[in-house]
Amino acid sequence: MGILVVGSVAIDSVETPFGRGENVLGGSATYFATSASFFTDVNLVAVVGEDFPQEHIDFLRSRNIDLTGLSRESGKTFHWKGRYGYDLNEAQTLDTQLNVFQTFRPKIPAEYANTDYLILANIDPDLQLEVLSQVKTPKVTACDTMNFWISSKPEVLKKVISSVDFLIINEGEARQLTTETNLVKAARAIQAMGAKNLIIKRGEYGVLYFSGNSIFAAPAYPLESVFDPTGAGDTFAGGFMGYLANTGNLSEEGVRQAIVYGSVMASFTVEEFSLNRLRRLDYEQIEARYKSFKRLTHFDTL
Amino acid sequence: MGILVVGSVAIDSVETPFGRGENVLGGSATYFATSASFFTDVNLVAVVGEDFPQEHIDFLRSRNIDLTGLSRESGKTFHWKGRYGYDLNEAQTLDTQLNVFQTFRPKIPAEYANTDYLILANIDPDLQLEVLSQVKTPKVTACDTMNFWISSKPEVLKKVISSVDFLIINEGEARQLTTETNLVKAARAIQAMGAKNLIIKRGEYGVLYFSGNSIFAAPAYPLESVFDPTGAGDTFAGGFMGYLANTGNLSEEGVRQAIVYGSVMASFTVEEFSLNRLRRLDYEQIEARYKSFKRLTHFDTL
Repeated sequence: MGILVVGSVAIDSVETPFGRGENVLGGSATYFATSASFFTDVNLVAVVGEDFPQEHIDFLRSRNIDLTGLSRESGKTFHWKGRYGYDLNEAQTLDTQLNVFQTFRPKIPAEYANTDYLILANIDPDLQLEVLSQVKTPKVTACDTMNFWISSKPEVLKKVISSVDFLIINEGEARQLTTETNLVKAARAIQAMGAKNLIIKRGEYGVLYFSGNSIFAAPAYPLESVFDPTGAGDTFAGGFMGYLANTGNLSEEGVRQAIVYGSVMASFTVEEFSLNRLRRLDYEQIEARYKSFKRLTHFDTL
Repeated sequence: MGILVVGSVAIDSVETPFGRGENVLGGSATYFATSASFFTDVNLVAVVGEDFPQEHIDFLRSRNIDLTGLSRESGKTFHWKGRYGYDLNEAQTLDTQLNVFQTFRPKIPAEYANTDYLILANIDPDLQLEVLSQVKTPKVTACDTMNFWISSKPEVLKKVISSVDFLIINEGEARQLTTETNLVKAARAIQAMGAKNLIIKRGEYGVLYFSGNSIFAAPAYPLESVFDPTGAGDTFAGGFMGYLANTGNLSEEGVRQAIVYGSVMASFTVEEFSLNRLRRLDYEQIEARYKSFKRLTHFDTL
């Protein structure tokens, strides 16, 4: 059945110390879907406006992403404008034009209702709950969120958190959600809210994965050139869920390996603007970097 | 032969969001030596003043640290006063009273001159060079430094860097030394200065180890309670060198395992003020946490 991804498709304008990308392809669901497409079939539910360029549609199709659920509405596509300083861990949002995304009510096409793997990208938690109710018996569900929903809809968000299998959020969001500064305490508090499994993203420092009493730490792959961190977290989540869907291995070891594949995918995305690096990526490069990741982290069996 | 440690022994007054330690035992060489003493014999070269309490001498002796090289001079002991906010990665120095440490000229006792393992804690790089010239044929040498020497004596420091086997510095210092914001580029630049092997400490995010083209990433052990990060880096280095001296295994695998033992030691130190946690630490606890470290990081062979 592959993966169902629900979230935003956007046009981004991004500035980093190393250059700029003007009106390039962006959006959380775009990164999720493209990344996951290296591992499994992907169905995308999102909305774009009349201005959305055909070349981006063609690109998503070239990745074998099913676009039955991508609706085109009158109006403009969601546009995000942001800037990164030398501290590439944090974006400064310069402008957000929600446009057609403002009234987005995801409708899951009937043929997607039996999906096994579901990713809820960062959208209104009320909509995330709606999607969850439309998908019949998913095997694995994951969701992301953002600071805006943590402050404006904490109660609904907690319902979502306790309904999915994997919550994927960043370090600052985990602290905001729990008002705990210590990250392990924050994770324990989120588990106490009902989160089954929790992945905390720490930008250039990698991720921490909490499941029961177990903790797994994966570093970010050390890179000499990070051009544009936009979409790194979404690419991570796409690779993670894509790999899980591909193997169906939900053991602790399988999940850890999926986390490493997610980290590998993110490490490619940040090497170039927008999704450009993923456009010319192949599975051999992914496998080679996965092997490097093992050399990077293992100390007991080299 | 064990390890020779040259550096500072101090009295610290430290404030963190979780409490304060007034006039407690501190100093880089103190943390180094105590940490290393869990793995090997340690000889300490440092200076204290007339006010240095006998109980601290007794503690160091209880760890089997040889104090032939610890001289007591007229005047007061080096006193450091600092504060940490909720971001425990960075200390704010409130006061530094160098006292007898100001005129410290390390003299290596004749019986230490054949030492195999030498740690040069953070002291004037001119003094580090002097010590290096007094130790005949060390098998492994390591040094630390700080921002003050990077800005005031960069050329002498570079001589030290290219003379030792392991440079151990923190992330900010690596960036300052090279004016590179990207950490991998900074590491490559430091290797180009002649550093044979480089360990970059990243506080709560762990360490990166660069050797030739190889990179090893070790996370910090995730803790629910970090009370006082003072001495974490020095404890790391002491555990690292202590383990190397204990095993004599300088292979890539041996060095990586030493890095993990260093990380394990640091994770204990930060759990309480000053060296208090190390006072009641035993080798079984160290081994247990080393095993947890493997479960924390490995994804291929659990």
